[in-house]
Amino acid sequence: MSVKKIAVIAGDGIGKEVMPEGLRVMEAVADKFGIGLQFDHFDFSSWDYFEKHGQMLPDNWKDQLGGHDAIYFGAVGWPEKIPDHVSLWGSLLQFRREFDQYVNLRPARLMPGIIAPVVRRDGTARQPGEIDMVIVRENTEGEYSSIGGRMFAGTEREIVLQETVMTRTGVDRVLKFAFELAQSRPKKHLTSATKSNGIAITMPFWDERVLEMSKYYPDVKVDKFHIDILTAHFVQRPDFFDVVVGSNLFGDILSDLGPACTGTIAIAPSANLNPERKFPSLFEPVHGSAPDIAGKGIANPIGQIWSGAMMLDFLGFKAAHDVILKALEQALIPDNGAPRTPDLGGNATTQDLGRAIAKHV
Amino acid sequence: MSVKKIAVIAGDGIGKEVMPEGLRVMEAVADKFGIGLQFDHFDFSSWDYFEKHGQMLPDNWKDQLGGHDAIYFGAVGWPEKIPDHVSLWGSLLQFRREFDQYVNLRPARLMPGIIAPVVRRDGTARQPGEIDMVIVRENTEGEYSSIGGRMFAGTEREIVLQETVMTRTGVDRVLKFAFELAQSRPKKHLTSATKSNGIAITMPFWDERVLEMSKYYPDVKVDKFHIDILTAHFVQRPDFFDVVVGSNLFGDILSDLGPACTGTIAIAPSANLNPERKFPSLFEPVHGSAPDIAGKGIANPIGQIWSGAMMLDFLGFKAAHDVILKALEQALIPDNGAPRTPDLGGNATTQDLGRAIAKHV
Ligand SMILES: CC(C)[C@H](C(=O)O)[C@@H](O)C(=O)O
Ligand SMILES: CC(C)[C@H](C(=O)O)[C@@H](O)C(=O)O
Repeated sequence: MSVKKIAVIAGDGIGKEVMPEGLRVMEAVADKFGIGLQFDHFDFSSWDYFEKHGQMLPDNWKDQLGGHDAIYFGAVGWPEKIPDHVSLWGSLLQFRREFDQYVNLRPARLMPGIIAPVVRRDGTARQPGEIDMVIVRENTEGEYSSIGGRMFAGTEREIVLQETVMTRTGVDRVLKFAFELAQSRPKKHLTSATKSNGIAITMPFWDERVLEMSKYYPDVKVDKFHIDILTAHFVQRPDFFDVVVGSNLFGDILSDLGPACTGTIAIAPSANLNPERKFPSLFEPVHGSAPDIAGKGIANPIGQIWSGAMMLDFLGFKAAHDVILKALEQALIPDNGAPRTPDLGGNATTQDLGRAIAKHV
Repeated sequence: MSVKKIAVIAGDGIGKEVMPEGLRVMEAVADKFGIGLQFDHFDFSSWDYFEKHGQMLPDNWKDQLGGHDAIYFGAVGWPEKIPDHVSLWGSLLQFRREFDQYVNLRPARLMPGIIAPVVRRDGTARQPGEIDMVIVRENTEGEYSSIGGRMFAGTEREIVLQETVMTRTGVDRVLKFAFELAQSRPKKHLTSATKSNGIAITMPFWDERVLEMSKYYPDVKVDKFHIDILTAHFVQRPDFFDVVVGSNLFGDILSDLGPACTGTIAIAPSANLNPERKFPSLFEPVHGSAPDIAGKGIANPIGQIWSGAMMLDFLGFKAAHDVILKALEQALIPDNGAPRTPDLGGNATTQDLGRAIAKHV
């Protein structure tokens, strides 16, 4: 049995609480399917580590993590103690960039047992399955650049510049991934997020590349919307969408908005992929470290568990992924006895829910 | 009686159809209150004009419009004939920038007779008045910059850069406007849209200025959210918000998303203000030129009419504004005999609805 090496980074806040439940479910499913998983724990990428070492990561983090098949990540950030842009640029955003995880993948799906906050035009509730989309986000360049700075700091004349950087290489490869994903799904529908009417230098380039790439995928139905009206469409007709591709910033926004529309923002998973598998990919819940509820043991572990399922899928264990998804769905349905954390209207603990899902598996 | 001079630019597509109804209502209310309004019509800022002259605006457009008290604007753009970034940067975005209309103001309010697509946590519908927010958008700088360009165009090495530009002057003045607006409203609550965890050069500056400015408005309750989770909150608890301030791009997104959440995107109004009144301010519906339904006479004129009400308010005629708002609300309530355009589920024409509102006034 070949063993997959997983680097485990729980991080900050509720990351530390949901990670054990994620691991519990991974172990249960590994047992069931006879999958060999080796978990190596790392304490960096956290406030605790920063407090001791004055930096978020050890100097040789790439060596320490590089040999792994995947990184299973909790959450990072503790704004009261360290500004988010310091902790994030010092850890998660480094992983994405240095390990060239250029695809950020986030599903938004109407799940059983969850009341979605967006309803049909006639005011009635949408049913599970009616919304099923995947956001594909460019994850290494674009608006998240480190080029720029300030002039006349601290004076009335102060001016701050930041460059958005798009490269043909960077745009084309994420588009290729998105087109292929769309092609593999029944609806074969790809929507591109743009803003070429206002952001008139980079975004027309993005549109050009979408148009060019679409020639290679004649069976994929392509459309594009400006980001402003696209957010409106997410609210008004989320069932219209299948695969949605966007730049780093637009993908970031849409991959919170999508799960918000399906009522799954607290439990949404995500994958940061290096599709060529030259570097480890990283799997993390969409939610953050949530300092306000950290330490109470009440965080919902589903986002962490679901992210683990995506990890197994990426590592080649599709059946294991499917079993976890089924167990998640069971756990979400009210009145079938599954414990519910406070965000789901119950008073179960993180552990209760994690155990229940592991048992289902 | 002093006469206010209004420059009228109907523009493209349904702009040409909703503008007459806007004017009809303006005239009715001017009659009622004895307000002197002079309307001067301009045919530029349209595809027709571009076709004839090869540019969106005459060279002396600033002289032609500059003497007016306000600009009443329809919609511009006809993507099949001219790329949006050419038509928009050639007209509307010029007005905003050259006339220093640095505040873009857009209300999002739950109106009677409209089914909002976002419901309460328990699945029940929200009631009129339950959502009432105003988006304040920086309208001249930020992400909408004209600095940048391409290198290695047409090759594999192609790279495209675009600068985001924030100035202390530009940020402070729009924040000041937003704080004062919040101060004047019952909830005195200001939310700032940021993304300082990811867009780590310009956005931390934005946050700093918000913090600094908040010291001058101790009675205003201030909070900030990253744009990704903020869009989720708009969907999950839109009733939480009062005044929301954002950069050019974030304000653009939120001011489509807000009205989408209240079901009013097709009828939302907007004001592009030069608060110092050194230059004319511009009032326009949020919707675009909608080439797909142009020429059919079925566009809903309420966004145009509501924008006219905002214009009268800005010109000092608060009572006239209020009367139009009441007439709008009457027209939106089903089963009280008002004609309904197709988007409202009826088969009335643009004119039918315009006339009905003018009569109510
Ligand atoms: C048409 C476009 C350039 C414009 C903008 O992005 O400002 C529009 O979306 C708006 O909000 O007025
Ligand atoms: C924490 C933040 C820097 C990050 C991002 O913007 O990428 C987060 O919002 C995400 O989506 O993973």
